[in-house]
Amino acid sequence: MTEKRSEINQIGEFGLIDRISSRVELQNSSTVKGIGDDAAVIDAGDDFTLLCSDMLTEGVHFDLSYVPLRHLGYKAVVVNLSDIAAMNGRPEQIIVSLGLSNRFSLQAVDELYEGIRAACQNYKVDLVGGDTTSSASGLVISITAIGRVQKDKVVYRSGAKSNDIICVTGDLGAAYVGLQILEREKQVFLTNPEMKPQLEDFEYVVGRQLKPEARTDIVHELGDLGIVPTSMIDISDGLASELLHLSKNSGLGVKIFEDKIPIDTKVYETAAIELKVDPITCTLNGGEDYELLFTITQADFEKIKNHPDIHFIGHMHDEAKQNLLISKQGTVIPLQAQGWNHFTSQSTG
Amino acid sequence: MTEKRSEINQIGEFGLIDRISSRVELQNSSTVKGIGDDAAVIDAGDDFTLLCSDMLTEGVHFDLSYVPLRHLGYKAVVVNLSDIAAMNGRPEQIIVSLGLSNRFSLQAVDELYEGIRAACQNYKVDLVGGDTTSSASGLVISITAIGRVQKDKVVYRSGAKSNDIICVTGDLGAAYVGLQILEREKQVFLTNPEMKPQLEDFEYVVGRQLKPEARTDIVHELGDLGIVPTSMIDISDGLASELLHLSKNSGLGVKIFEDKIPIDTKVYETAAIELKVDPITCTLNGGEDYELLFTITQADFEKIKNHPDIHFIGHMHDEAKQNLLISKQGTVIPLQAQGWNHFTSQSTG
Repeated sequence: MTEKRSEINQIGEFGLIDRISSRVELQNSSTVKGIGDDAAVIDAGDDFTLLCSDMLTEGVHFDLSYVPLRHLGYKAVVVNLSDIAAMNGRPEQIIVSLGLSNRFSLQAVDELYEGIRAACQNYKVDLVGGDTTSSASGLVISITAIGRVQKDKVVYRSGAKSNDIICVTGDLGAAYVGLQILEREKQVFLTNPEMKPQLEDFEYVVGRQLKPEARTDIVHELGDLGIVPTSMIDISDGLASELLHLSKNSGLGVKIFEDKIPIDTKVYETAAIELKVDPITCTLNGGEDYELLFTITQADFEKIKNHPDIHFIGHMHDEAKQNLLISKQGTVIPLQAQGWNHFTSQSTG
Repeated sequence: MTEKRSEINQIGEFGLIDRISSRVELQNSSTVKGIGDDAAVIDAGDDFTLLCSDMLTEGVHFDLSYVPLRHLGYKAVVVNLSDIAAMNGRPEQIIVSLGLSNRFSLQAVDELYEGIRAACQNYKVDLVGGDTTSSASGLVISITAIGRVQKDKVVYRSGAKSNDIICVTGDLGAAYVGLQILEREKQVFLTNPEMKPQLEDFEYVVGRQLKPEARTDIVHELGDLGIVPTSMIDISDGLASELLHLSKNSGLGVKIFEDKIPIDTKVYETAAIELKVDPITCTLNGGEDYELLFTITQADFEKIKNHPDIHFIGHMHDEAKQNLLISKQGTVIPLQAQGWNHFTSQSTG
């Protein structure tokens, strides 16, 4: 088609997004925010409408040899609701598009939709449409979520101010550690099909991988407390990558402290003892936690300082390019987004 | 997974949609219309927001051996804008999700997006987000379109009344005939790669297949004339299938006249002479015309009776199951949706 061929890998996932978005011209006054945050923002009159989309493809994002279809359906919804939550919004509807090869039976479709419906029920979201189609090979799930936020409550990646406190919900690294366990047990099984997977000890981490939850609860709680975060993003690619997004978009530096990063004991032990990997690296570069990372003003700190599920891991500062991790020993380590080095997936809204 | 295996083919595309939608419970008061029309309808305050999605998969919906990526990008947008138009709405934003195997270069992605951007410019629609991801094989494009309609102007498939006049825009059958020509030339080329495809004589029909347009112009014109159709749908699966949707949803019968179905001379000749197929069958069962099929009251007929691009092909009547085609000879033929008999694709909103 063209003479020169460049691989997508060469510019990477974020390079590709920049390339696409740099060529976009917005023409509608109703478009408040296009590509470049967790969701697009559209002026709907009284409120803003939020829109985001994620595509999951078999063999890249999921492996049906250990992912039950019900869980896959649930997760495919949740990752989108998490993006709406990251804008401080409340998800209300989803649209589901499926591409299915003839390997999939009606029962398989039913199982997938059971998971989708379970997520809809848990999060009070309506399935309002979509497209069901054939694919030449494998399963593709593309979900669009629609949410709503009051105009003065929308939160972007770009709003952090110097000295704002960096907060993270829940605990990190579990989904990545869970994935490593599932992959390990798969290899054991492939080598010796008589072996049964040993997953009893790893329920928590495997559960976090297979059936993540979106932190819409935190959005509600912050709303009740009268807190509007100054910036927010959900943790899909790993803490480091997301911190760098807040840094870049807000034009500030981040400084976080290793000993403040929330890691569950089970995650710590599984990483360090079972898998012989650094638990902190799992949190920084693992991804798929779907926790919320956000910043608040110093003034709001008092309101949530005792919240059992919100952790204060550092603060923003004026030196835009100084994104630093302070180790337990006091060493200053520059934060790097190792994330997914290869071209896999990146949602742009 | 389960003991009994049923094929999706057994219940067909519309059976699958009915199965999915019958299990959906709507929980949000903002959901006005879920699955079952050209787009979902959401209460956004002053206006309704319209949402629809279409997924195109390589090897099922397009064949890159004769579909240029630029045209594919354009068409993938247009088919969604057509769904918004079918609700009497105006498209404003789109979200594009792509799954790409490593066969695709950066140049290929650029070409695809050139087509997407061209469609955005032509229709004054903003590209506001999406997801770009790897796929294990082939190309998948999933686009969601967002539109807007005044609350008292939204048009469903269900609103037709007895004696309403059935209207169709443009001409029908061209896209199907174009596809047959492209497939024929591909086979010639595969048999003898020295042969160049002979497409000069088939520019119109091939153009309608490769680069369809959405009839947003008609929505504007009807609006200017003060006409709100009583029911509407876009023609993606063929005239017969769409007529049966209006019939079923409105609880009425349709009666159309063969000699009123608009067919371009080139379509007629290519079908009858080149391909030796019945031109009327191409319009009834071909699909992908993306023209609008709608009904108007007798009172509105006067306002558009001389419109050069709107054709009056019949009327609604009280006998719900009597969907009839009156042939040129006066024979009464029951309308059947042969459409795509195999499981391929069906948009549900």
